[in-house]
Amino acid sequence: MEPTTGDLTDPLINHADGQLFLHEAFKIIVEDVLCKGTDVKEKVCEWREPEELARLLDLELREKGEPQENLLQRVRDVAKYSIKTSHPRFFNQQFAGVDYHSLAGRFLSEALNTNLFTYEVAPVFVLMEAEVLRGLRALVGWTEGDGLFCPGGSTSNMYAMNLARYRLYPEVKSQGLRSLPQLTVFTSPESHYSVKKGAAFMGFGMDNVILVKGAVPFLVSCTSGTTVQGAFDPLDLIADVCDKHKLWLHVDAAWGGSVLFSKKHSHLMKGVHRANSVAWNPHKMLVAGLQCSVLLLKDTTDLLKKCHCANATYLFQQDKFYDVNLDIGDKSVQCSRKVDCLKLWLMWKAVGSAGLEQRVDKAFLHARYVVDQMKKREGFQLLGDVAPVIKERMMKQGTMMVGYQPLGDRVNFFRITILSPLVSQKDMDFFLDEIERLGNDL
Amino acid sequence: MEPTTGDLTDPLINHADGQLFLHEAFKIIVEDVLCKGTDVKEKVCEWREPEELARLLDLELREKGEPQENLLQRVRDVAKYSIKTSHPRFFNQQFAGVDYHSLAGRFLSEALNTNLFTYEVAPVFVLMEAEVLRGLRALVGWTEGDGLFCPGGSTSNMYAMNLARYRLYPEVKSQGLRSLPQLTVFTSPESHYSVKKGAAFMGFGMDNVILVKGAVPFLVSCTSGTTVQGAFDPLDLIADVCDKHKLWLHVDAAWGGSVLFSKKHSHLMKGVHRANSVAWNPHKMLVAGLQCSVLLLKDTTDLLKKCHCANATYLFQQDKFYDVNLDIGDKSVQCSRKVDCLKLWLMWKAVGSAGLEQRVDKAFLHARYVVDQMKKREGFQLLGDVAPVIKERMMKQGTMMVGYQPLGDRVNFFRITILSPLVSQKDMDFFLDEIERLGNDL
Repeated sequence: MEPTTGDLTDPLINHADGQLFLHEAFKIIVEDVLCKGTDVKEKVCEWREPEELARLLDLELREKGEPQENLLQRVRDVAKYSIKTSHPRFFNQQFAGVDYHSLAGRFLSEALNTNLFTYEVAPVFVLMEAEVLRGLRALVGWTEGDGLFCPGGSTSNMYAMNLARYRLYPEVKSQGLRSLPQLTVFTSPESHYSVKKGAAFMGFGMDNVILVKGAVPFLVSCTSGTTVQGAFDPLDLIADVCDKHKLWLHVDAAWGGSVLFSKKHSHLMKGVHRANSVAWNPHKMLVAGLQCSVLLLKDTTDLLKKCHCANATYLFQQDKFYDVNLDIGDKSVQCSRKVDCLKLWLMWKAVGSAGLEQRVDKAFLHARYVVDQMKKREGFQLLGDVAPVIKERMMKQGTMMVGYQPLGDRVNFFRITILSPLVSQKDMDFFLDEIERLGNDL
Repeated sequence: MEPTTGDLTDPLINHADGQLFLHEAFKIIVEDVLCKGTDVKEKVCEWREPEELARLLDLELREKGEPQENLLQRVRDVAKYSIKTSHPRFFNQQFAGVDYHSLAGRFLSEALNTNLFTYEVAPVFVLMEAEVLRGLRALVGWTEGDGLFCPGGSTSNMYAMNLARYRLYPEVKSQGLRSLPQLTVFTSPESHYSVKKGAAFMGFGMDNVILVKGAVPFLVSCTSGTTVQGAFDPLDLIADVCDKHKLWLHVDAAWGGSVLFSKKHSHLMKGVHRANSVAWNPHKMLVAGLQCSVLLLKDTTDLLKKCHCANATYLFQQDKFYDVNLDIGDKSVQCSRKVDCLKLWLMWKAVGSAGLEQRVDKAFLHARYVVDQMKKREGFQLLGDVAPVIKERMMKQGTMMVGYQPLGDRVNFFRITILSPLVSQKDMDFFLDEIERLGNDL
């Protein structure tokens, strides 16, 4: 039955029913995800084979809607079979843990449902994003500059490449790469794969991420905190070379950037103020929640806007009644852009720079503790490739989650990522005991 | 004071305090954003000049954290001064309204805080995304194919361009654009600006978005629902040309795609099944909440993965104990990728395809109603450029929000975007009355 004009008198959504559902769902989220999901006595994951899981979740989308009680059961099921990434024994990824102020900020961002492209639809967030970026730039050592929250570190890295080539050859924006000499990116073999993905996506070609004779180097991409080993490139030394050859220095600090909050560890990024751009993901070590990723720029010539603008007249009218420089949307290659600043801002307000420093310092202490303990234990010199087997046992029993990978010629090894402010020494001990237990017979 | 090893016994976060804060914040969200924010007796916006707003929000980030009561006041302030995009009189953008099931899904996604790159960290969402994409593809008319949720329609459009050039010249991935002939994109002057932005970003150059003699056309980008006028390109006619010349046909249906749910209006996209790719943003007409944006592909040759993969060994190990085809992360140029499927899935489950059809049909009825009423009213033939003045009055009084822009040689006109399932006929009448009232003396 199609609606008729008569139906126009009533809205399609009932607020009372809707809010009741939201309240019930909120209760399940608190109970199942935030309480049970962070309880060490509960499992990290509830492993199911894909076919079984699909059946349990009743994924099929149908013509008719379902009753509220069914839907609440779906909410419970999604929570039950999802990985508990906030669990103290989730060491599998460079995100973990939960910060409740950040989470409140995320709920509020979702409820406010707006886009960060103009001051008129996002007045609070335009100003807030600017303030957060200013705070992060201050840690890099810049008193002025520019920047943007991006949908992840890969995008931040691509933006840096785009700005670097535009600075060198502004005509690339209108004419494309074919009119330019072959451009190359310098980076280390340990850099994140997004540099290569970005080079392919942006038309440079992956092959040109290494040095090619006769080509024009335009960007050096350093890493502060490599993905697998957590290594920091020597920024000062590399900046000397970039200065000499006038190359754009980009620092991919998606993982490591948060050391800048720490008086004790910020030396790992000594020289970062000499970079042109820095990519930094507070959703990683600072536990700001996915996604929270920034690109910081030293530039003060409005390069970001010049490079990315398309001047859409329906959005960025120049005859507005307020300062149109507040309409920051044209700095992005996105049109819709999520509000990712509020969660970081509220968390930062809540614990202060001092609280964030404490998180970073504690993560380093935990890492040091695990290494020390490992050296003391026998049986941690693994000879064969046992990691995949231990991982399977771990996940099927659901006791913890840790990632593994090979490195160079070496066989698979476990990479324990320690960053959650929820973990304590006993979780480190558990990790060691559990690896021993799971691999005991191998 | 730096932490010592002794501090490792306790976690840094207190769950009880954190959950108490979250509960209080949730209450404010419900009261201020969802109740007051959707009440027609309340304002759509609380206009403040930027300097005043910055002061009111106390944006500064400090060394020390703040007490909970201060932070809750910040939450109230952010809600107060943010635009109420769910208000029935917010017609300013191609998003509006609120769906409570979607919102519950968004809260749950945020609380679960995971990334859609491997089955091991997102088993539920890998399967759920596949099911939602299948459901959307079925509406396009495809029984198989591929796809991905992207951070916005601009990214979806760029992906389509990348796939089209890769299909034609797979060597572009490693060698870049310089080894290829000049490639051009065909699109209409009314297409979204993201096509030009994408062409610049990806190295084609903006100039090559129009026809260039001697160049190789590789992609035709059609629009289903243009941004300003809501026009639909004739897909069948364009598909004939693309078939003949073997061009990749991309349909940017970010705005219009949702008509596919409607038996009455799906004819606007007749022929869409002949496309190679479709970009569609359910966060627009379906009210799934920002961001919710998909790229749908007809391809069955794993082009998406071939084109985008970088085979990171730390994430996409091939010796896992489950089917590694479930690790979909390498289909994306992102690494971290938000979970955007749950909100759409839960909403779809709740109201069914029939409920979504009803939303689309109702939006069309509302639009028809406004046009009919406008024709009946005198004084709607505006002569001078009064839209910016009316807009300023509107926002400073906070009574409603509608966007304006020029078109071709014509002066600014208002673009009323009607999509929210919260609106009713009286909101349409209000719009007309209010434009008259605000512009009465002009």
